[in-house]
Amino acid sequence: MVHHEHTSNSKCLVALTIAGSDSSGGAGIQADLKTFAAHGCYGTSVLTALTAQNTMGVQGVHGVPPEFVEQQIRSVMDDTEVSAIKTGMLFDTKNTLAVAKTLESIFSSHGHVPLVVDPVCVSTSGHILLETDAIETLINELFPLACIITPNLSEAGVLLSRRGFSSKVEKLGEMVQGAKDLLELGSQAVLLKGGHVTVRLSDLETARAEDPSIAVISDDSFSDDVEILRVSERDPNGVDFVVDVLCQIDGGVTLFPRPRLDSTSTHGTGCTLSAAIACELARGRQLLDAVRYATAYTHLGIETAPPIGKGHGPLNHAHPVLLRPLSIRTAGNPHPLTRLCIQSTAVLWKQYVQHDFVRLLGKGTLPRESFLHFIKQDYLYLKYYARAYAMLAAKSHDFALIKSSSDVLLSIITESSMHASFCKQWGVSDEELRTAPESPATTAYGASLIDTGLRGDTMALTMSLAACLLGYGEVGLWLKREASKPGSWVNWESNPYLRWMEDYSGKEYQDAVRIGIESIESRAAADPPSEVRLEEWKSVWERCVRLEKGFWDMAMTLS
Amino acid sequence: MVHHEHTSNSKCLVALTIAGSDSSGGAGIQADLKTFAAHGCYGTSVLTALTAQNTMGVQGVHGVPPEFVEQQIRSVMDDTEVSAIKTGMLFDTKNTLAVAKTLESIFSSHGHVPLVVDPVCVSTSGHILLETDAIETLINELFPLACIITPNLSEAGVLLSRRGFSSKVEKLGEMVQGAKDLLELGSQAVLLKGGHVTVRLSDLETARAEDPSIAVISDDSFSDDVEILRVSERDPNGVDFVVDVLCQIDGGVTLFPRPRLDSTSTHGTGCTLSAAIACELARGRQLLDAVRYATAYTHLGIETAPPIGKGHGPLNHAHPVLLRPLSIRTAGNPHPLTRLCIQSTAVLWKQYVQHDFVRLLGKGTLPRESFLHFIKQDYLYLKYYARAYAMLAAKSHDFALIKSSSDVLLSIITESSMHASFCKQWGVSDEELRTAPESPATTAYGASLIDTGLRGDTMALTMSLAACLLGYGEVGLWLKREASKPGSWVNWESNPYLRWMEDYSGKEYQDAVRIGIESIESRAAADPPSEVRLEEWKSVWERCVRLEKGFWDMAMTLS
Repeated sequence: MVHHEHTSNSKCLVALTIAGSDSSGGAGIQADLKTFAAHGCYGTSVLTALTAQNTMGVQGVHGVPPEFVEQQIRSVMDDTEVSAIKTGMLFDTKNTLAVAKTLESIFSSHGHVPLVVDPVCVSTSGHILLETDAIETLINELFPLACIITPNLSEAGVLLSRRGFSSKVEKLGEMVQGAKDLLELGSQAVLLKGGHVTVRLSDLETARAEDPSIAVISDDSFSDDVEILRVSERDPNGVDFVVDVLCQIDGGVTLFPRPRLDSTSTHGTGCTLSAAIACELARGRQLLDAVRYATAYTHLGIETAPPIGKGHGPLNHAHPVLLRPLSIRTAGNPHPLTRLCIQSTAVLWKQYVQHDFVRLLGKGTLPRESFLHFIKQDYLYLKYYARAYAMLAAKSHDFALIKSSSDVLLSIITESSMHASFCKQWGVSDEELRTAPESPATTAYGASLIDTGLRGDTMALTMSLAACLLGYGEVGLWLKREASKPGSWVNWESNPYLRWMEDYSGKEYQDAVRIGIESIESRAAADPPSEVRLEEWKSVWERCVRLEKGFWDMAMTLS
Repeated sequence: MVHHEHTSNSKCLVALTIAGSDSSGGAGIQADLKTFAAHGCYGTSVLTALTAQNTMGVQGVHGVPPEFVEQQIRSVMDDTEVSAIKTGMLFDTKNTLAVAKTLESIFSSHGHVPLVVDPVCVSTSGHILLETDAIETLINELFPLACIITPNLSEAGVLLSRRGFSSKVEKLGEMVQGAKDLLELGSQAVLLKGGHVTVRLSDLETARAEDPSIAVISDDSFSDDVEILRVSERDPNGVDFVVDVLCQIDGGVTLFPRPRLDSTSTHGTGCTLSAAIACELARGRQLLDAVRYATAYTHLGIETAPPIGKGHGPLNHAHPVLLRPLSIRTAGNPHPLTRLCIQSTAVLWKQYVQHDFVRLLGKGTLPRESFLHFIKQDYLYLKYYARAYAMLAAKSHDFALIKSSSDVLLSIITESSMHASFCKQWGVSDEELRTAPESPATTAYGASLIDTGLRGDTMALTMSLAACLLGYGEVGLWLKREASKPGSWVNWESNPYLRWMEDYSGKEYQDAVRIGIESIESRAAADPPSEVRLEEWKSVWERCVRLEKGFWDMAMTLS
């Protein structure tokens, strides 16, 4: 009966990064692995070099031998189906060649995998990281394998000058031309990152006027033509934009402008962006969409960055991620919500299901008037309980839930007529049953169900109905198990309340309990609660367990 | 007005792993970084060695020089406040010594940081990974710094025999003794992992009978004394348990039994567990709770592991993580939910807010009978709209929302009397207004609000109320902006419908729009929706936008 659609062992997309290590965790394979995780991809990694670095700078570098770079790539790709690859810092000529040759050999035998090349060759301070030979190898050997390369402006300058193009990329127009020229270097597409060029709205308009085929994709609030969402204080003409330029062999030029963020949390931005593009490609997105989502992800990562380190801190890679407040459902723990609810009210729950009323009932020594008071009040309560299931049906918008609620409703009506026949056995007339005055404990519990039904959605109402359904099931099973022990305190066979114990421990009622638990758990798994919502469910549950205990207090005190 | 409590730039706990690299991503610093991410910690890492490996085995190892290990540790810890550290594979004597000495020096000058030492020295195949010297260094130099060490059974055997203790740990009783003996090696606590010892329920009972001070903490369903949650098919006496044994200097012995999982996805289990303990310690948990949560996390990671690789695959590190279906709220994108709703109904939204009715109204050429038909129906609609806000108040359980709903309700009643005075101006009597027959478009929209209110929670109802509030705000601002353009098609000054345009573009109404948007966004940020819930909100919004368009269709066709 237990389904695990939303739980476990589902297939996972695998992404591979080939890059350096950043001990501080903000760039390199560390940034890539965090980005992969934030996109739901399984991360693998090949190290080309290690750095000892932090947000203040690089304190040391340790290269990895090229044959070991090749071995790492083969270890990963021989064993695992990789859906996308990104490369970052490749350190030197030999390692660049090792990466290019190994990938080429694997692609030719096992088929091509989308490859994002971040041509890391100039540090943010402008220092050339790769020697000339390595840059030639990058262009000649690796670019032809890449579906996209993602240079920043300095790298674009170095790459363009190597091939005799103008390396001046200081304005938007020059960036567009630069991206087109970079496409000549062999990749399928170029994303030229405009981090250090300041663009105004008028520059964007000029660029489009000069070449109407240029597309502009903007996710920011300045581009909305929705008046009510405008951030009215800012004049868009006075805003500095950062524009990334995408140029595709078959897709023309697309600009991605975003308002410049005033932030020092930009360490590892390039690593993060190229890793995010790889994830989107692994998911099967078209390149344009991949770039769109990846640039948005990276922008938000800068905007929401936590304060870490004394210098240029890392991005917040985890912004698309929420931590589950409710544990995932598995075969070993198929009832995480029900267990959490019972555990979080452990004392109250025991006071309810092992109430003196229950113990005396099990012994057969429960005073007759307490039982009759209980049965009469329970009869009145069942009216609320049935109405609450009717509300549940009325609130549902699929036939399955409408039907299951109605089935329970009908079984409650049957249960109520059982109460009536019980009462008759014990000498209580229909008339007496129907006219019994309602106890405050009954009103409190019954009205509270209707209140929860009015206030919330079907899940909150279901949680409020569960304390009764599950608790009576627990009472029935507990008494039955206790009765089965040698020399038990429970008097089963000759108990005046035998039928009551049989009803709640019997198959029919226990089936209803199982269906109820399954409904709660499968809905919580399909629609995982936020912390706020889980607290609401727990508080609804807690209120009802308390009211259940109060109900048996009422029976004992005849109040 | 915009609050960002739940958005960005919040402080982040930093964890550090000092270990080897596993190219396949299932063990080593990769497993650690994934575990850190799944606990909401920011991961930093120091590499002691690289491996080329996959789920089938290790294909190559490349050591990192000890001085570079030290440099990496210093780069991280000089710059960042680290809340917990774990060590894994330290490769050789020199690196083990470098790690111990560097940490000792930093701890003595900057204060102690909780340190979890996973004493990796034996491979899963039983091969000794660390030479004797390195093991001595581990014991003598690193254990004294550790708040806990986490050996598996093979490692425990090696460590115990180095100090002359019995290395036989093949039964639960021997494990308990072994853990006590290991505590003599200098750490504050020992977690002896029982992966390869099969324990039965009777063994647990025997252990407790022999030493009643031993505590047993079990999160699994066998230990629940809740009858209704029992997995009834299995006899707990026939179940194989894996038991981890925690022994603390001041805390005695605690056993953590869990049913053995039949899984080959166990690559990196030890790395993952020790990393998870570090995260829990970083959060400030007591060691016992840290071990409890970390063992539960690891167990679920094995149980929910995805199929990756051909051999012993990795755990699912990401099981506590959900991906947000709705983007995080930031200063740059303060309205992610409203924007998503409008963007997801872009065509319909334009048909609504730039309807022919609106265009003709703006020109001043809207037929009088269309406007009057609209006003009369809008008068009838406002009754539903006011009732829906009354429902919202009735469904709310904090005074702020009860008050804000009631404020809107009262302003709707004011708006309806404005409609009446409008009508009087245009020669429509109160009597005619009150007795106007309700159009099907009005009934559809009005009843749909009540239906949504009945079915769902306050948020669903709020979303259904938003299309009207926001759309009329948009119409007002759009007409006003269009009117401000030179040679505009909008006739503002001498428009017979001027007052209508002024009302909806005016400050009072626009303030209400802003408050409405803020309410939606702040509640979605505080209670992030699941995919299912977000789809519900979008579908409620889409229905209302469609009904709004239908409302103006009705006015134009006088239907």
